Amino acid sequence: MAAALELFGKRDAEGVSIDDVASAAGASRALVYHYFGGKQELHVAALKSAAAQLEARLRPDGPDGLHEGGRPLEELADGLKRYFDFVEEHATGFAALLKGGPDNRDGEIGEIVDAVRQRLLRLIMKQMRLGEPGPALRVTLRSWTASVETAGLDWLEHGDMGRPALERMLVDQMLALLGVAARQDPQAGELLEKLIRGQAQ
Amino acid sequence: MAAALELFGKRDAEGVSIDDVASAAGASRALVYHYFGGKQELHVAALKSAAAQLEARLRPDGPDGLHEGGRPLEELADGLKRYFDFVEEHATGFAALLKGGPDNRDGEIGEIVDAVRQRLLRLIMKQMRLGEPGPALRVTLRSWTASVETAGLDWLEHGDMGRPALERMLVDQMLALLGVAARQDPQAGELLEKLIRGQAQ
Repeated sequence: MAAALELFGKRDAEGVSIDDVASAAGASRALVYHYFGGKQELHVAALKSAAAQLEARLRPDGPDGLHEGGRPLEELADGLKRYFDFVEEHATGFAALLKGGPDNRDGEIGEIVDAVRQRLLRLIMKQMRLGEPGPALRVTLRSWTASVETAGLDWLEHGDMGRPALERMLVDQMLALLGVAARQDPQAGELLEKLIRGQAQ
Repeated sequence: MAAALELFGKRDAEGVSIDDVASAAGASRALVYHYFGGKQELHVAALKSAAAQLEARLRPDGPDGLHEGGRPLEELADGLKRYFDFVEEHATGFAALLKGGPDNRDGEIGEIVDAVRQRLLRLIMKQMRLGEPGPALRVTLRSWTASVETAGLDWLEHGDMGRPALERMLVDQMLALLGVAARQDPQAGELLEKLIRGQAQ
């Protein structure tokens, strides 16, 4: 699985053969076929593995998925740090997951990426003790997660900004975006207050 | 081509056959094969067509691609309006092109999406009379375009926010994001000043 993730992260899916994966894993072609069925199945399995690793990384350690007495803004910064830890340590897996295949979000691979985005959004809402968001706040939270993904890929491509500065900028972006959303949605303003004041409830 | 765009926008690529496209276009299967070669080629051609339409829409009418005496902030709002005009009028084509999400980039389809993003970024930089941006400003501009894409797809999915309110929020997001980037990059601050003051140079 690690060999598959590595290869799919480095090349287009079309450029990876079962033979390549078998050879990189020191396994026989027959064994890979036996366990995964085919290349498409192997690709999907590798992406699911990357998605599971990312989610496990982001889930805080406390009971019910929250830090004991954690402040929302610190939890957000901490979650972002874990996200970039994943980006850094599993660069190929991260790229493989978010770059998707030739038909990313169409079909099975797209569903995985979509599901990860949905769950990350739910995780953020949970960390912020937030119920179902209204339109402006929902768009804002989705926009911010897209920003974070884009920043992660940009960092892998260019690497010309230090991680701490980049992570700080993304946290500041969240606060600034909530400030903008607050002009249309009081719920966004309340969330911003909560983050700035550092109150958990 | 219109029939192909419509079908690929409504269903997964796997769920669209050459027969479907031929039938929707009132053409023979043989004719579609003759002109496009196969389904993958047809899909790519349809997406290229959607990308070209989007770019044509965004290019301002003036000579050298700039409005005569246009103010950068008005040009930004105007560009955003043209973008959402496209989203609204070519909903299926837009979804087909961008469904990949903020970072679908593998293979031929990914290259098309990537090329559109690159050119939109260049267009924004041109409209803002901006040279090569530094890291913080580059990440910020890429993040904002990802936000706009995400907002476009969210609007097609939910449609629970009026376009004027959504467009205003996205312009305000750009200003807020530049304010954040300005803490790390004076160039972002200069751009923000330029936008707020409404000076073209």
